[in-house]
This record gives sequence, C-alpha cells and structure tokens, in this order.
Amino acid sequence: MLIGKACRLGGCVRRRAVKLLSRLFTCSSNMAKSKFEYVRNFETDDTCLRNCYIVVRLDGRNFHKFAEQHKFTKPNDNRALGLMTRSARSVIEELEDIVIAYGQSDEFSFVFKRTSTLFKRRASKLMTHVASQFSSSYVFYWKEYFGEQPLLYPPGFDGRVVLYPSNRNLRDYLSWRQADCHINNLYNTVFWTLVQGAGLPTAQAEARLKGTLAADKNEILFSEFNINYNDEPALHRKGTTLIWEKRDETITKRVKLPDEEEKEVPVTRSRRRLQACHCDIIGEQFWEEHPDILEDSDC
Amino acid sequence: MLIGKACRLGGCVRRRAVKLLSRLFTCSSNMAKSKFEYVRNFETDDTCLRNCYIVVRLDGRNFHKFAEQHKFTKPNDNRALGLMTRSARSVIEELEDIVIAYGQSDEFSFVFKRTSTLFKRRASKLMTHVASQFSSSYVFYWKEYFGEQPLLYPPGFDGRVVLYPSNRNLRDYLSWRQADCHINNLYNTVFWTLVQGAGLPTAQAEARLKGTLAADKNEILFSEFNINYNDEPALHRKGTTLIWEKRDETITKRVKLPDEEEKEVPVTRSRRRLQACHCDIIGEQFWEEHPDILEDSDC
Amino acid sequence: MLIGKACRLGGCVRRRAVKLLSRLFTCSSNMAKSKFEYVRNFETDDTCLRNCYIVVRLDGRNFHKFAEQHKFTKPNDNRALGLMTRSARSVIEELEDIVIAYGQSDEFSFVFKRTSTLFKRRASKLMTHVASQFSSSYVFYWKEYFGEQPLLYPPGFDGRVVLYPSNRNLRDYLSWRQADCHINNLYNTVFWTLVQGAGLPTAQAEARLKGTLAADKNEILFSEFNINYNDEPALHRKGTTLIWEKRDETITKRVKLPDEEEKEVPVTRSRRRLQACHCDIIGEQFWEEHPDILEDSDC
Amino acid sequence: MLIGKACRLGGCVRRRAVKLLSRLFTCSSNMAKSKFEYVRNFETDDTCLRNCYIVVRLDGRNFHKFAEQHKFTKPNDNRALGLMTRSARSVIEELEDIVIAYGQSDEFSFVFKRTSTLFKRRASKLMTHVASQFSSSYVFYWKEYFGEQPLLYPPGFDGRVVLYPSNRNLRDYLSWRQADCHINNLYNTVFWTLVQGAGLPTAQAEARLKGTLAADKNEILFSEFNINYNDEPALHRKGTTLIWEKRDETITKRVKLPDEEEKEVPVTRSRRRLQACHCDIIGEQFWEEHPDILEDSDC
Repeated sequence: MLIGKACRLGGCVRRRAVKLLSRLFTCSSNMAKSKFEYVRNFETDDTCLRNCYIVVRLDGRNFHKFAEQHKFTKPNDNRALGLMTRSARSVIEELEDIVIAYGQSDEFSFVFKRTSTLFKRRASKLMTHVASQFSSSYVFYWKEYFGEQPLLYPPGFDGRVVLYPSNRNLRDYLSWRQADCHINNLYNTVFWTLVQGAGLPTAQAEARLKGTLAADKNEILFSEFNINYNDEPALHRKGTTLIWEKRDETITKRVKLPDEEEKEVPVTRSRRRLQACHCDIIGEQFWEEHPDILEDSDC
Repeated sequence: MLIGKACRLGGCVRRRAVKLLSRLFTCSSNMAKSKFEYVRNFETDDTCLRNCYIVVRLDGRNFHKFAEQHKFTKPNDNRALGLMTRSARSVIEELEDIVIAYGQSDEFSFVFKRTSTLFKRRASKLMTHVASQFSSSYVFYWKEYFGEQPLLYPPGFDGRVVLYPSNRNLRDYLSWRQADCHINNLYNTVFWTLVQGAGLPTAQAEARLKGTLAADKNEILFSEFNINYNDEPALHRKGTTLIWEKRDETITKRVKLPDEEEKEVPVTRSRRRLQACHCDIIGEQFWEEHPDILEDSDC
Repeated sequence: MLIGKACRLGGCVRRRAVKLLSRLFTCSSNMAKSKFEYVRNFETDDTCLRNCYIVVRLDGRNFHKFAEQHKFTKPNDNRALGLMTRSARSVIEELEDIVIAYGQSDEFSFVFKRTSTLFKRRASKLMTHVASQFSSSYVFYWKEYFGEQPLLYPPGFDGRVVLYPSNRNLRDYLSWRQADCHINNLYNTVFWTLVQGAGLPTAQAEARLKGTLAADKNEILFSEFNINYNDEPALHRKGTTLIWEKRDETITKRVKLPDEEEKEVPVTRSRRRLQACHCDIIGEQFWEEHPDILEDSDC
Repeated sequence: MLIGKACRLGGCVRRRAVKLLSRLFTCSSNMAKSKFEYVRNFETDDTCLRNCYIVVRLDGRNFHKFAEQHKFTKPNDNRALGLMTRSARSVIEELEDIVIAYGQSDEFSFVFKRTSTLFKRRASKLMTHVASQFSSSYVFYWKEYFGEQPLLYPPGFDGRVVLYPSNRNLRDYLSWRQADCHINNLYNTVFWTLVQGAGLPTAQAEARLKGTLAADKNEILFSEFNINYNDEPALHRKGTTLIWEKRDETITKRVKLPDEEEKEVPVTRSRRRLQACHCDIIGEQFWEEHPDILEDSDC
C-alpha cells in the first residue's frame, strides 16, 4: 500500500522511497531470520552407534486393505512381490552401503554395512530416505507389474532403524524375518487351499487351522490336496534376498595401436550386479557361498 | 531330495514319511523363530517427549539436479510448487493430528498437535510415514501438474523430527522457514532477472549480487527492471501454508416425512476443509485470525 | 631390558641409545593414542531438549535395608531426613540453575530452570553430578546428624532425568511427589502406631490396613489413638521444599570520607538464601507467593 | 480449624465429622495422585543397545583445585591414587557384571560385560549408581588414605556411558585411556622435575617443554637428572587395572564322620578376588593371560 503511494511520486523520490522501505523491510526480515535461527538447536542428534549393522525395515501401511482394493491374488500375488523387489532395487541402487536386503509379503529390510558413514549415520536421514525412495519407486514402477490395472491411491510404508552389533545378531535378524515368512506362508497356503480348493468358508478354514502345527498343515496339504509344500515356489516360501554379485564381464573392444592394424581385443571388467535369490539364508551354506557380505565382527 | 525318494513309496508309507519330515522341519523352524526373536529387543524406543509440538520436515534429495532434468522454470516453477502442495495435502489427509503445514521450494514442514498420540508418538513411525506418503503422492499426482512431461525417475525426500515445547518456539520455527523463503526468493528473483532479463552470464550475476543487502536487491529490480518485488506472486514470496478451516456447508436434501409430501430442506453441516494460503505467518495477524491452531502452552 | 644394556655404555653412546629408544617408544605411543582416539566417536549426544524444565530425581538404593542397619526410627527418622536435606543443599549450592528441589523419604528431586545451559544441558553430566555431589555430601555430613552412631558402609543413590515442557507439567510432577509423600506417610503413621502403640505384630497391622481408604486410616488414628493426623509434623506430611529466597540484609560498615570523621553507615544488600519449607506445593498459594520460581511458559 | 471445632462436639459426632473431613481429604489427595501420575510418561527409555560393552567413565570435578586444597604431592599423590582405587573396588563389589576397570589420575572407567542385564541396561541407572557409589566411598574411605588430614568438602565426579560393540573397540578404548596416562605422566614427571629438582619457575618449565616430543622429555630426564623414565613406578606410568581373578583357596576343616575320629581335612574352593595390577593393557600379553575378561564378539 505504501509502495503503491510511492509509485505516484516522481522517479527519483520513488526510488529513494522504495530503497528506504526495502531497507526497513530487509533489515527486519534479516534480523528476523537470525532471531529465529535458535530453533535449530532443538534438533537432536540421532547418530547410529558406530561399528554396528544398521537395518532399516519398511512395512506397508494398511496393506491388508490395499491388497483387497487392488485385487491381489491369494495367498501370494506375484505382481505385488515383483513390485516390492523392484522398489527395493531402486533403494539399493540409489543409496550406498547396503550389503544385503531381504523382503517378504509387504515388508523389506535393508542392511547397511557396519562401517557405513552414509548421512553421517543419522538414523532419521537413513530411514526417511529409504522409506521415501521405496515409496516413490512403488508408484513409479507400478505399471511394469500391474499393467493397465490402475493404482487407486498413493500407498504408505513406515520404517524403523535397528542396530546389530555382531554378525551373529544380524544373521539372527534375517533368520527371524525368513522364519516369519515360512510360518505365514505355510498358514496362508493351507488356508487359501481350503477356501479356494475345497470351498470352505473362511471362518471354517480358520477354525480348522486353529492350534495346528506345521506338520499338521503339511499333512492337510498333502493328504487332502496332494500338494507337497516344498514344491511351492521358493519366492513364496523363502522370500527375496538381494545381494551384490561381482561378475567378470568380457566385452570386445576395437583397439588401434600405433604401427598396427586396428583389431578387436577382449576386455574383461569386474562389474557389480544386484542379484535376487529365493534361497535359505538361515543355514550356513548361503553365508559360506557369500563371504563378502559380512565384515569381520572384530574390526 | 528325501521327499523325492519318499514319493516313490506307497501312499501310506509316503504319508508317514512326509509327516515325519515336516514335523522335523516344523519343529526346527518354529524353534528357529522363537530362537531368533530376541533380536526384537535391539529396537530402541524413540517416543517423542509429551506435550511438545512434533514437527516433521521433508527436504528434496538432489532436487537441484532433479529440477534441471525436469526443466523446472527459474526461479520458481508453479507446476512443481503445486505438486509439492498436492503431496502435502495427501499427507495431512492421510495422517491425523497435523494442525498446520508450511512449504516452500523443495521442502515441507508438518506440525502435529502437542497432545497427539499418533503412532504412540514414535519419532521413526511419524517421520517415515510422512516421507513415504509424500513421496508416493509426488509420483502419483505428477501428471496432474506436469501433464505429458514424463517423470524420469522416482525422486527422494529426507525427513527429520524436531520437538518444540512452547507456542513461541513453534511460531519461531515457522517464521524461520518463511524468512528463509523470503531471502532465497528475493535472491533468486534478482539473479534470474539479471540472467534471463538482462542476459548476464550466471557467473556475472552471482558476482553482481555478492554482498548485496535485500535493499540493494530491491533497488536493482526496481531501477533496472521496473519490478516491484512486493508485486511478485505471494506464492513465491511467502510459500504455502495449509490449515484446516471449518465451514458451514448448506446442502439441500429431499426429505419424506410420514403423512407429508416429500420436500426439499436445507441441511447445514460444519465441515473441515484444508485451505492453502500464501500469507505472512511471522506477524500476529495470522495467529489472531486462526486462534484454534495452537493449544494453550500451559496445558 | 634394552635400556639396561644401554646404561653400561659410555655417556654419549648411552644418551644416544636412550634417545633412540625413547623416540621409538614415543612414536609408537603417540601414534597409539591418535590411533585409539576414534573410540571417542562412540559417545552419543544426550543433550536435553531446550526450553524444558530438567528434573533430576535421586532415590536411595536398598534404603530399606540401610535404614534397618542404621536403626532409623519408624515411621520417620528426623536425623535421616535432616541429612537428606543437608545433602540436597550441598547439590543446589554446588550446581547452578536449580530453582526448586523437593524431597521426602529417601528421594530428592532437583529442578533446573528451563533456560539452563549448565553442562550444555547434557543429561548424563547433569544426573551424575547431582548423584555424585549428593552421595559424597551424605557421607560428609553424616556426623552432623547421627553424631557418634557410625556409618557402616557408603550408601548408593540412583538418578534419572525427566523433562517437562510446561509450567503445568512441572507443577504436576511436584504435586505427584508430594501426594506420594502424603499417602505413604499416612499409611506408615497408622502402621507403626498399630505396631508400636498397640503392640500388633507387623503382619496383623498390615492385614488391618489392607484395602482401607485414607478416611479409614484417619479414623483409626483418631478413634483408637486420639491422634489427629493433621497435627503430625509438617516435615513428615509434606516433605521438604528448598527454594532460593532474596532477603535484604543490612549491615553496618565503618566509612571514612575525606574531610570527615570515620563513621558507621548502614549498608543494605540483596542476598539469596536457600530456604526450606514443609508446606503444601500442590495448591495455588505457594506458587502465588513465589512467582519467581517458574518462568513464563511461552518464552 | 474445622477439626478444632469438631473436637468440641460429643464423641460420636466428632468421629463422624473427622471421618467426613478425612474422606474429603483422602478423596482429593488420592484423586490428586492418580491425576498427577501422567507425568511419569515424560520419562524416556534409555536402554543400552544389547550385546555391547557398557563403559561408565567417571571424572573428578574441579580436581585441579581439589588437589591444591588438599595438598596432593606432584606429579602423583599415592594416597589420592590409592583412594581412587579403593572407591573403584567399592563400586565393583557393589554392582554386578563389571569385568574390568581402569583408572588413572582423577578418572576411572568401569566395563560391564556385553550380556549384562543389570538395571535392565538403563544408562541413567548404571551411570548414576556408579557415580554415587564411587563418591560416597571416596568420602567414606578418605581417612584410610589421608589419615588425620581432613577432607575439606564433599568432592564431585561426573560420569558418562559409552557403548562398544566389539572386543577390538573395547580394547582400543582401554588403550586410549592408558596411552593418555602415559603421555600425561611423562609430561608431568618432567615438568615437576624441572620445577622441584631444578628450581625452574613453572612458566619456564612450561616453555621448556613446549613442542617437545616424548623422546626429548626422556632425554631431559636422563641427561639432566639421571632419571630413567621407565624406572618410575608402574602405578604412575600405567595406571591401575582391576580384574577378577579366580583362585583356589585351600583351608583346613575339622570333620567328624560317623564311626570315625574327628579329623582335619583340606578343602579347596574356587574364590573370585578383585586384583589390582599396574601393567600394560595395550599389547596382546595381558589379554592372552586373561582370556576370560572378554566374551566372544560373535555371540
């Protein structure tokens, strides 16, 4: 308003008025910023303890409902599992220092190496970056897995950070998640076989399974439906493990040396590629075959 | 392999063998899960102190590069700002207890009320949910703002949690962000006017602005380009504030009472709607006009 | 050993050998220190959130047994209570910024003002200093309260830090502790009156009091022992509150002005003294009479 | 006052009045306590990460001044060092799970085993208990070390908690403290030799030592004062390490078996005793000789 009035005056006076006003304004706004900056001191330091593995685990928010609304097949939807793994790849490729990741159902765990200094090991930065990158990727790659079926709304994932001081602790964490996958998948496989295969109402299927042991569930599958649980897809029984694998790649290059004809020579380079497997990670074999994933506990 | 062999035997023996094997398997895997579950105890409690405002601030990751690659207009891209605000709305509508949010450039701050018990006030849950919902929304709503211009890759946002014990502290936090918006936008406005309007190389524009005060910048705009900074869009100068506003909505309903003809009656309901404004939130006026945003400090 | 050999050689050689050896030694030990110093980075930052009251509460460790062994009178031992308060004074005089302290039984709470920057607000420093100063004082001043009765072993106190964002929260904390004092003291007064006054075995006294309300306890005291609980010492019913009080002290000083005779003049100075009271701190009166203890919540 | 009036009435009425009043009182105070108890929720969980060594380090507060006032001999006072170690013993004997402690000058570090669950691993409990027990012991045992020289005031120690995930990290922590002891003691030894032996003013001694390496300091001691630093007491050069040692103790017991004469038989028991040593704990030898102190890193 004042500025408006100033504009009606002649150029010189106008200019001086503007200068004066803006100086006043500047002065107060700059003062303001420095006056307000004390609020930064309310931020707390959440640096992760050094020399521990940093695990970030994501879980889908309200994914039961999300699965219903997007007509996920039961007990497992391969499109959804594929999209989870695609999103996890995006996280691993974007953020350094993730040495192994494991996913099943609507959850995925990412393990940062114990010596990582990414984001100065700040827990909030690590977990929000993982949650953010995973979520934007989930929407970005939706079409690759669900084709023309539309995504109805943007999904949410929550995350947490857990630290593991020793290799044994970390392996036990991963074993815990894979054991969880096994138990849930066995239950779901029998449940949906009873419902979809035998036409049982869900309440009856639930009642039938109440209190049964894994052996009983195997037996139901085998004797009633001639299904051997161990023949079920490894993707469903074991989940998905993502690790970096070094491969020697040999390509052919055309080379021209002085005093020689140009010729084709084979060039071998070591390349790191992200590999998915659906194997057992509880036993020793996996870790013996991949000795580079874990660092020496006593470093 | 053993299962394979068992399959060649007769039904009864086979069944017993499967049962035996699966019992063994079950036994070990269930034991396994309980054996591994101790790793849960490595999770730490990160409950936010009660009776404090919880602020979650998101910042775009590598957004300078992201803006380049997606050809954002300089100094402000209204499509990008609109998409930020759309994503913030998605967060606020999805998560309860957010009483005000403020965004500018590639950042957005969300303020949870001091008495919120959402996610039991766990910092990790709060910040990852916000980061996740915002990021998936950013991709989901991209097309609404950028039309046919494709999103090249899924973007990332990091987040953090900060607690503010008093109303004054919270207001100073929001003032700090809006003062930051002002300072950056004034600089950018002059810089890009020099570059785009006057054809200065960026290095020269930078040199020209080095050490200038806000008053000097206003003066450059006014005397050289006849631009009054205060006439620049409020969206750019003040950023975007999102608050809930209660409105009485009157709709017409057809009602049929017994022994009467069906008729139309007006029905008034109080509805909460998310409103965006681009106003000053540093001074008293905004807070006097919206006394419901902040709770009494001494509750 | 090598040094020993060197010593048998002539001075010059000896000196050179020592120098050489010590250089080697130095080199390795200095290297060592810098090589080891990385372990400092494992310390975590535990700065208390700004603008909150910091409460440190101490509790006696195994004080039930300690009281038995040192023959504390039941239900309250005035010597022990006096020693607690003496130790608390020592803490308050030694550490700055404590605005109020409240003690009862074997516990004492110290409240640091919300703007305190003592020890950079590091929780560990604050609570260990308080615990340490209190404990060394307890032993140091023992004799003043227990005379010739010996202290049998050094006692222990544990401590914790709790933050309160608002004046209301802080007052409710102090009210909680004083309400606890009241409830325990009423119980103990009746219990020990039954045991000591009426000769009831402790098990019977316990049984008698099981499930009784405060009114019942008052009634037992009054009808059976003609004791009006409200006449019991305020020290026992209300605990001890320590606050700073400003007093004007007038002393007489001998002054010699030029061209005048030396004369005595009264000089008044404002002095801060630590005052103990055994008053109610739950109601409004105490806080109205001492408006300086609490700072404005909205600073 | 009301009670007073009630007393003038007859017994029955009196009783009812008291009951009524006390019920009112009770009611409000009990309500009060439950009404206030919400403040407990402001306490935060500070559980130490599992499977890490927990180190509590204490440091004397203003011990430079304390040493002056109590006339500690320079550069080392054996009484003061003895009292520090005595107080450390008191801590270790009182609190479980401390596997090694190391002290020098006015500091002492206590290492809890990685699997300890003492105080549920709560950092605040651990550090305040250590600080408290150490401080009360320091005063309690003062006379044993300083005889008739009085303690002038109760001293203070601050404490902190640091976690170490691996054996290597823990050993490096202890090495860091011992390297610190070496560097300080070498400096102090030369400094006070120059001051006390050669009569240099302290400022000149300081100037003389500025910029010198350990080798230079050794050389000054040797060439000017004929002192071989390595002959200095190990207590001063290496500090004090406290560990538990198992010893077989054989005592003679008089035993009376049926149908036999009473006779003396030797009985051997394994006993744990706290041992002090002033040895090197940086190299391998100490740890090879005491393999029980550290647990396997990969448990």
